[in-house]
Amino acid sequence: MTRILRIDASGTTEVEDALAVEEPLEIRVNDKPVSVTLRTPGDDFDLAAGFLFTESILRDASDVESFRHWGSPNVVRVGLREGVRVDLARLQRNFYSASSCGVCGKASIDAVRVHTTPLDAPLSVPREVIVSLPDQLRAQQKTFDATGAIHGAGLFSADGTLLRMREDVGRHNAVDKVIGSFFREGESLAGRILVVSGRASFEIVQKAIVARIPVLAAVGAPSTLAVELARELRLTLYGFVRGERFNQYA
Amino acid sequence: MTRILRIDASGTTEVEDALAVEEPLEIRVNDKPVSVTLRTPGDDFDLAAGFLFTESILRDASDVESFRHWGSPNVVRVGLREGVRVDLARLQRNFYSASSCGVCGKASIDAVRVHTTPLDAPLSVPREVIVSLPDQLRAQQKTFDATGAIHGAGLFSADGTLLRMREDVGRHNAVDKVIGSFFREGESLAGRILVVSGRASFEIVQKAIVARIPVLAAVGAPSTLAVELARELRLTLYGFVRGERFNQYA
Repeated sequence: MTRILRIDASGTTEVEDALAVEEPLEIRVNDKPVSVTLRTPGDDFDLAAGFLFTESILRDASDVESFRHWGSPNVVRVGLREGVRVDLARLQRNFYSASSCGVCGKASIDAVRVHTTPLDAPLSVPREVIVSLPDQLRAQQKTFDATGAIHGAGLFSADGTLLRMREDVGRHNAVDKVIGSFFREGESLAGRILVVSGRASFEIVQKAIVARIPVLAAVGAPSTLAVELARELRLTLYGFVRGERFNQYA
Repeated sequence: MTRILRIDASGTTEVEDALAVEEPLEIRVNDKPVSVTLRTPGDDFDLAAGFLFTESILRDASDVESFRHWGSPNVVRVGLREGVRVDLARLQRNFYSASSCGVCGKASIDAVRVHTTPLDAPLSVPREVIVSLPDQLRAQQKTFDATGAIHGAGLFSADGTLLRMREDVGRHNAVDKVIGSFFREGESLAGRILVVSGRASFEIVQKAIVARIPVLAAVGAPSTLAVELARELRLTLYGFVRGERFNQYA
C-alpha cells in the first residue's frame, strides 16, 4: 500500500492505495542470462518455464533438472538435465528466418513455422461457452480488483471450465505463467482454450500455437499479424468477446 | 480490411473488419541492428529516434546524419554524424547497475539515474486541465476508432493544448513516436505533459524522465516500480484520469 492523493471535483484526499507490483526478473539457462522481463513477482518458475517453452527453447518438462531462485528473488536459474542441448541463439533469431522478404510479417510467421507445425483438427466450442469465458476469468482476477492494472490469462477445458488463471502486469507474462504451470507438470494443452483479458498480439498467438492450444479467445482486438499467423497455423481465434457477442478471425 | 465472422445471440454474419496493423521494425545504428519491435507502420523515423533517445543512446538531434529505410520498409537505419560515439551496450545494461542489490527494482531505478538527473521544479497544472486530457487524446485517435486495438500517446502544453499525438499497437512505441518526433526537430519537452491511453509502467516513466517531461498523466494505473521511479526523479505522475477524477501518485 502506498499513500497517494485522490482528486475530484470536491477536492483532494490523501488515501492508501494498492498498486500492481512490478519488478524485473532475470531468467538464466544454466549459467547464461537469456532474458530480463518486468513482471509481477509470484509463479516465477512457471513464468520461466512458459517463456522458454513458448520460445521453443525447451521442448519437454524432462529437459529441466531444477528451477531455483539464484542469489536474488528476481533471478531464476533453469538448470538443464545433463546431456540436454538447447538453442539459445533462437531467442535472437525469432524475428528472422529463411524467408525471402527479410524483416516482415511473413518472415515472422515463417520463423514460427520453422519450429512448429499447423495445429490439428479444430476444437468445436459452443457459442454459449465462448461468451461465458471472460466473466469467469474476471471473477478470479483478485489482483485486478485491487489495482485495476493487471492482465489475466486463463486455461479452460472445452466445456468452459476454468482450469487455472494467472495474473501479471505484462500480458505475455500472464500467458507464460499459465502455460508454464502446465508445462512443468508435463500436461498437454491440446483440447484447451486460452483466454486473455486484453488484446491478441502476434506474440500471444505464437505462444498458443507453440503450446499446441487450439483456441484463443481475447477480450480485446487482434492485430493483422496475429490473424495471419492464426490462419496459417490453424489456430481458432476469437476477439472482442464481450457480453453476448464476439468475432471469429481465424 | 479482412473478412471475419461476427457472432451474437441472433446468429453468425460475415463482415469486413479493420484490424490494427502490426509488423516488425528493425532499428539499426549505422550498420548494427540494435532492436526489433512489433509496431504499427508509420512514423518509423520518429519511433527509431524516440527509442534511441529515451534509452539514452542518442543525446541530441545533431548526433544523427540521416534516417533511412534500408532495403525494406521494416528496417530503419539511423546513420550517425561522423565522430559521434554511442554506447550501444547500454541497451543490454539498462536493467543492471552498480547497485548492491543485483537484479531488483532499486537497481532498475539506479540504472536510469546513472544517465539522467532528477527533474527540475514541478510544473503546476490545474485540475480542470488534467481532467480534459484523455478526451482530447481520444478524440484524435482515428485508428482506435476503427480497430479498438491501439494505444495513443500525446504531448500537451501546460495549458492543456494537444500539440501532437501518435498511435501504435505497442504502448512504448506510441510514446517513442511522439517523443521522437519532437527530438528530431530539436525541440525541448520541458514544460510539456505526456498523456498515455493505457497504464503507466516503469518503462513509460523512464522515457518521460529521460526526455525531461515533467508531468505524465495515464488513463490507466501505474505499477509500484513506476511510482518509485517517478518519486525518486521528481516526475509528477497522475493515473486513472477518468471523468472528473484522478489520482496523484508522485
